[in-house]
Amino acid sequence: MPGTLVRFAWAGENRGVTTVASLYGPVAEDLQLVEDTLDLTAQTDFLPLQEMLQSVLSRGGKRLRPAIALLSGGFGEYDAQNQVLLATSIELLHTATLVHDDVIDASETRRGQPTANASFDNAATVMLGDYMFAHAAELVARTSHVGVIRLFAQTLKTMATGELRQDINAYDAESASMRDYYARIYGKTASLFETAGTGGALMSGATPEVVSALGEYGRCLGMAFQIVDDVLDFTATAAELGKPVGGDLLAGTLTLPSILLMEEASGGDVVRRLFASEDEGERESLLAEALGSIRAGDILERSQATALEWQGRAVASLEGLTSPSGRGNPQREALEGIAAFVVSRKF
Amino acid sequence: MPGTLVRFAWAGENRGVTTVASLYGPVAEDLQLVEDTLDLTAQTDFLPLQEMLQSVLSRGGKRLRPAIALLSGGFGEYDAQNQVLLATSIELLHTATLVHDDVIDASETRRGQPTANASFDNAATVMLGDYMFAHAAELVARTSHVGVIRLFAQTLKTMATGELRQDINAYDAESASMRDYYARIYGKTASLFETAGTGGALMSGATPEVVSALGEYGRCLGMAFQIVDDVLDFTATAAELGKPVGGDLLAGTLTLPSILLMEEASGGDVVRRLFASEDEGERESLLAEALGSIRAGDILERSQATALEWQGRAVASLEGLTSPSGRGNPQREALEGIAAFVVSRKF
Repeated sequence: MPGTLVRFAWAGENRGVTTVASLYGPVAEDLQLVEDTLDLTAQTDFLPLQEMLQSVLSRGGKRLRPAIALLSGGFGEYDAQNQVLLATSIELLHTATLVHDDVIDASETRRGQPTANASFDNAATVMLGDYMFAHAAELVARTSHVGVIRLFAQTLKTMATGELRQDINAYDAESASMRDYYARIYGKTASLFETAGTGGALMSGATPEVVSALGEYGRCLGMAFQIVDDVLDFTATAAELGKPVGGDLLAGTLTLPSILLMEEASGGDVVRRLFASEDEGERESLLAEALGSIRAGDILERSQATALEWQGRAVASLEGLTSPSGRGNPQREALEGIAAFVVSRKF
Repeated sequence: MPGTLVRFAWAGENRGVTTVASLYGPVAEDLQLVEDTLDLTAQTDFLPLQEMLQSVLSRGGKRLRPAIALLSGGFGEYDAQNQVLLATSIELLHTATLVHDDVIDASETRRGQPTANASFDNAATVMLGDYMFAHAAELVARTSHVGVIRLFAQTLKTMATGELRQDINAYDAESASMRDYYARIYGKTASLFETAGTGGALMSGATPEVVSALGEYGRCLGMAFQIVDDVLDFTATAAELGKPVGGDLLAGTLTLPSILLMEEASGGDVVRRLFASEDEGERESLLAEALGSIRAGDILERSQATALEWQGRAVASLEGLTSPSGRGNPQREALEGIAAFVVSRKF
């Protein structure tokens, strides 16, 4: 979507975000510790595992979730060691779910690079993901904060349920309700953003009000993030996505743009025929037709507007949060900057 | 110690162990609480998930691991609630690994019943296993015992590495060393038995010596358990196994009997040809030849003798352990009874 998007957002002002790292100001150094801890994760004495871990972890990423976890610790008593353990654990959990998703979707590329299960076999990839979950659990356990440890376990349950919900709803044109969609994207994406906020705040011993506000920030931003992701699946190029355009629809996953399309009589018909068809050529032509309809009308703008509503809620939940240092409010500003980035990103 | 059992396992005399539950004397009631907690695990508000959980958890099992975890708590200050949480968590972790193994092996039956991935699809099964891991982690986190929580996470790492090791060694005739074999079976089986002993003892605040002794008991018994399993793969009927006889060899997994076979010149040749062949008919006839050679000589007796050595070590590690109650030593007797059962079992 256009560069006017940030203007579209809560404040209407383009903050000139060029790189993600610049957003992370107050926690930039600790994010480097997160990177180092991730690198250490790949060190094991079983060489084939080490190679798999390096291949998966070296793909990079925007590190939004760990940044939120670190920043959310800034409204209480920030203990760098524990905040970094939690932040790393959250990023590792995220990466582990991507590894398992790739088995599930039988994806061959992610971010333009071969997925684990394209490089290794399915069996090894399932085990790789399990190992990463376990390592993430070990990192969070090292904090000795039982509340955060339990939150972590609950989040993994929520995420697994969300993925299962998506899998079970696949190719089901009747799952085209906003309620189903929100349940799916909360589970698969927003729940972990929420845990970054809640967990980061809990770790620092912040008050219940602060914990709740940062959890709400994470949850709403996660919803915005996934909606933007779902819009990009229709607007970006295959090269930008590192996977085929319209891939969600082809995989039978209804997202906001295709749900809006189904509200139009002819659009609904195209999607239903696409989901029912087993003929490769017919599927391609129906997908092209659906993509054309989605791009022609105002569906993408309306979807983006919904993402902006969620982003607005995320930012509104920060209302009243002040940094205990008293020297400005750098954590809150960074969280607002991340929110602006999430809805303006092109990748 | 049940010397007669050892004789039986070697000499083939049936001691008449008909039910496993009779072994669990001092913890029989708390094992029922483990069953109840497992039943509760299957309660979720997402119906398809609930059905999957019920189908996987209702298959039963011998509950050896939770029994060991409960019994190992009997040498310190036994807190029933926390011991039951840990024991349930260990059984759930075990069941979750079976679910993921079935995806990996593309198994269609386990214990004679359809596996999760035969009933559901691969994607749903991966997520089901993830959910179960997460629930297991949540249960153990409820104990608030950070040492045990960390042990739990480390065990899952060890198990995933063990499965990966088996996967990577598959169809590799050069992985026929006892060292490779022991590393694989420690990872996939003995590590969780060890955690049942170590974790159960840690939870009760037992002394480091007691914790170490019970961990050693679990580790050695787990090795014995897996060796017996690997022998049964050649001696039991398909009906008893609930899967094809010689399935390990067919799947390219070298176990103790086939490693011993490979020490014989002609046997090594058969296994190498089996691993190299892609012709279905040839594979069947080579498997039959390998099975015949394994059964004809003393390979199975020697394998069983190795299992008995490990069982002997398990029992020896209990030397000197006394129940704090002072009223006999029912926990130790039960652990010895379990050890005897493990090497005499026919299923």
